[in-house]
Amino acid sequence: AGEGRRMGEVKPLVKLLGLTLLERTILSFNEAGIRKFYVVVGYRKEEVKKHVEEIRKRGIDVETIDNDNWKKGNGTSVLAVRGREKKFFVTMVDHFFEKDVIKDFIENVGRRNTLLVDKEVNRVFNIHEATKVKLKGSKIIDIGKELKEYDAVDTGLFFFNEEIFEAIEEAMEEGNASLAAGVKKLAEKGKIYGHEKKRGYWIDADTKEELRIAEKLILKSIPKKEDGIISFNLNRKVSLKISKWLCNFNISPNLITILSFLTAIAGSILFYFGKYVYTALAGIIIQFASIIDGCDGEIARLKFLSSSYGAWLDTILDRYADAIMAVFVTYNGWLIYRSIIIWFLGFFSLLAFIMASYSRKEYELRYNKKLESKIDNLSKRDIRIFSIFIGSLFNKAFEFMVAIAMLHHIVIAIDLARRRK
Amino acid sequence: AGEGRRMGEVKPLVKLLGLTLLERTILSFNEAGIRKFYVVVGYRKEEVKKHVEEIRKRGIDVETIDNDNWKKGNGTSVLAVRGREKKFFVTMVDHFFEKDVIKDFIENVGRRNTLLVDKEVNRVFNIHEATKVKLKGSKIIDIGKELKEYDAVDTGLFFFNEEIFEAIEEAMEEGNASLAAGVKKLAEKGKIYGHEKKRGYWIDADTKEELRIAEKLILKSIPKKEDGIISFNLNRKVSLKISKWLCNFNISPNLITILSFLTAIAGSILFYFGKYVYTALAGIIIQFASIIDGCDGEIARLKFLSSSYGAWLDTILDRYADAIMAVFVTYNGWLIYRSIIIWFLGFFSLLAFIMASYSRKEYELRYNKKLESKIDNLSKRDIRIFSIFIGSLFNKAFEFMVAIAMLHHIVIAIDLARRRK
Repeated sequence: AGEGRRMGEVKPLVKLLGLTLLERTILSFNEAGIRKFYVVVGYRKEEVKKHVEEIRKRGIDVETIDNDNWKKGNGTSVLAVRGREKKFFVTMVDHFFEKDVIKDFIENVGRRNTLLVDKEVNRVFNIHEATKVKLKGSKIIDIGKELKEYDAVDTGLFFFNEEIFEAIEEAMEEGNASLAAGVKKLAEKGKIYGHEKKRGYWIDADTKEELRIAEKLILKSIPKKEDGIISFNLNRKVSLKISKWLCNFNISPNLITILSFLTAIAGSILFYFGKYVYTALAGIIIQFASIIDGCDGEIARLKFLSSSYGAWLDTILDRYADAIMAVFVTYNGWLIYRSIIIWFLGFFSLLAFIMASYSRKEYELRYNKKLESKIDNLSKRDIRIFSIFIGSLFNKAFEFMVAIAMLHHIVIAIDLARRRK
Repeated sequence: AGEGRRMGEVKPLVKLLGLTLLERTILSFNEAGIRKFYVVVGYRKEEVKKHVEEIRKRGIDVETIDNDNWKKGNGTSVLAVRGREKKFFVTMVDHFFEKDVIKDFIENVGRRNTLLVDKEVNRVFNIHEATKVKLKGSKIIDIGKELKEYDAVDTGLFFFNEEIFEAIEEAMEEGNASLAAGVKKLAEKGKIYGHEKKRGYWIDADTKEELRIAEKLILKSIPKKEDGIISFNLNRKVSLKISKWLCNFNISPNLITILSFLTAIAGSILFYFGKYVYTALAGIIIQFASIIDGCDGEIARLKFLSSSYGAWLDTILDRYADAIMAVFVTYNGWLIYRSIIIWFLGFFSLLAFIMASYSRKEYELRYNKKLESKIDNLSKRDIRIFSIFIGSLFNKAFEFMVAIAMLHHIVIAIDLARRRK
């Protein structure tokens, strides 16, 4: 269940990184496993309803619920769910949570009313505005903005059972129709618990500045753990900037995969001519292609478009791109040395490039876990292409390729030797 | 719990396909998930105990139990377990079951006494000697060799709770100390059930002839479902014969992996000379290496030595062998055509050989299931090497290699295109 907090602008429709806040909220909970959504609408509800209809058409089970009392307080929006669900989650479109944070919360709530709380209070943005929580064990004993003593901060992500409806009504009778007042009633009865936030970001973005911080946090969460050295320190920094821009357009990640592949091929072909200026240009282009090769995955993750097919296609095309690069760099070396040995070394290099990845995949299939090995950073695509790029600037693309290929083979051999019983 | 049936020879110590019958019984149940074994010994027990000690040293939790009453009947051997276990499986060393049959039985017994029964009575070897079972629903209502009307046959694999002890004692009081008599007592009380055998072989091998049949059934169960056309129709037939012989020696599967790899390299190098007789010989040797490449897995499965590491090593070395073959076959083509195009086509071929396998592995990782595709038979190692072998006989190894490589790339492209949403 989702609930819109109303402000001067139509917040659910504000765009951030290619998605409206409403889309991002729904899709991030959908990704975490939630399959049914309610959007409680009040302020400029026709616009919001139209947008919800668009989301619905993309296959998400989402309904709108009118709340004509929205001006009284956001507790009325939770009341609007009554009769529809007996247990539900509540969040606001301007609250952002990292995927793992949502997943952990969803998987760990039981049947009790639960609030996701952040105990690292000194790391919370704008602590003055935050709702504080006093805990006794996991039970919430007091909650409010003005608490002097507190153990944690309210993140704005709730799990409720039907007890919340009565609590909100009691608070309304006392003249306060806010959800916070209802939650305070639950706390007074000892009927709400805190679940500690797992490692990962969350932010309540009330202002435009906080929205920019949210954007940064989202972008920062995108890179993969397995990123190699060059990828982490160089490629990602550039590709994230490109992705941030690209995600505003309706470009599919698979199209970017293919464009990056074609760019790599175009660059590789320039190695064919053998003149320094072409070779250097080839190096620059393949390095550029290597950078934008990160954008497909980034945009997929930013816009919740990840697919098994996309990941498969990307990996296969990467290997084909590597092979085409290897053959043209080898030809480039042949033009210089005119020795048949060059071709043997070319095979040696191509083999290294594919096998480095193959060996890791095969390990994962056989052992059912990733191959954890620090030296693997020396046999990944980022460093492979970066080496050839640097080599090409010195008109030594072939030599650099063979050197990095040798390193790849050594890494494969060490990985194999290490895991012998 | 295991129980030895005694005959003129020391049956547990009889060797079959590199293992004693006792080893095979224990290891096949260990593979299916059983972790604690009792071997009830009577006849020539010191020899059996010594052998059990050897098995124990290999890390299997197995104990012997003396049964000095063994001559009275095999029910006494089950009684010997009393006080040690309250629920246990019973089988005999001369009963053989396919892995999936054991697994299915183990996973599906509850707390009730259960006998694995075979309802395909007309397919049972030596039905006259078999113990027949009359069922009512899943309950066993009568059991014995002389039954005129029956629904199934006793396979000799039991699961018992403590009720069996009393039943055997009752039968003993009536003068029959056989397990069959005890089971009949259980059946009379309605306290034993039949579990229908899953698809897969089982055999009770009382005679030397039946032991040869058991050997054949075991060998027949070894080939993998994913075997390609050439592998299924040619390579396996030869490799199983070699494995049947090799498994009598103390050779590790990984050693065979390495020997097959070295054989493939030796064969590949012969392509370097360019003379027909060398080329043809090279083709024969790589085809031979391709055949013995099956033996490592076969021996691992025959002797319960399968390991993740072995599978990983085998796959990586196969790819390296393919690459070395590709480079020498390309050189062979270069000697004939002396055109640089040959080297480009060589890269094209090497890429195909590795990517055919890579694409399948990557699919499996991304989709968490195997890529089911009939055309994949055209891009497997067996057909790849067989094509080059045939080509080399016509002194056209390079041409055949490029042709099969082209086929590989087409298969990869079709697989990718088909799975697009």
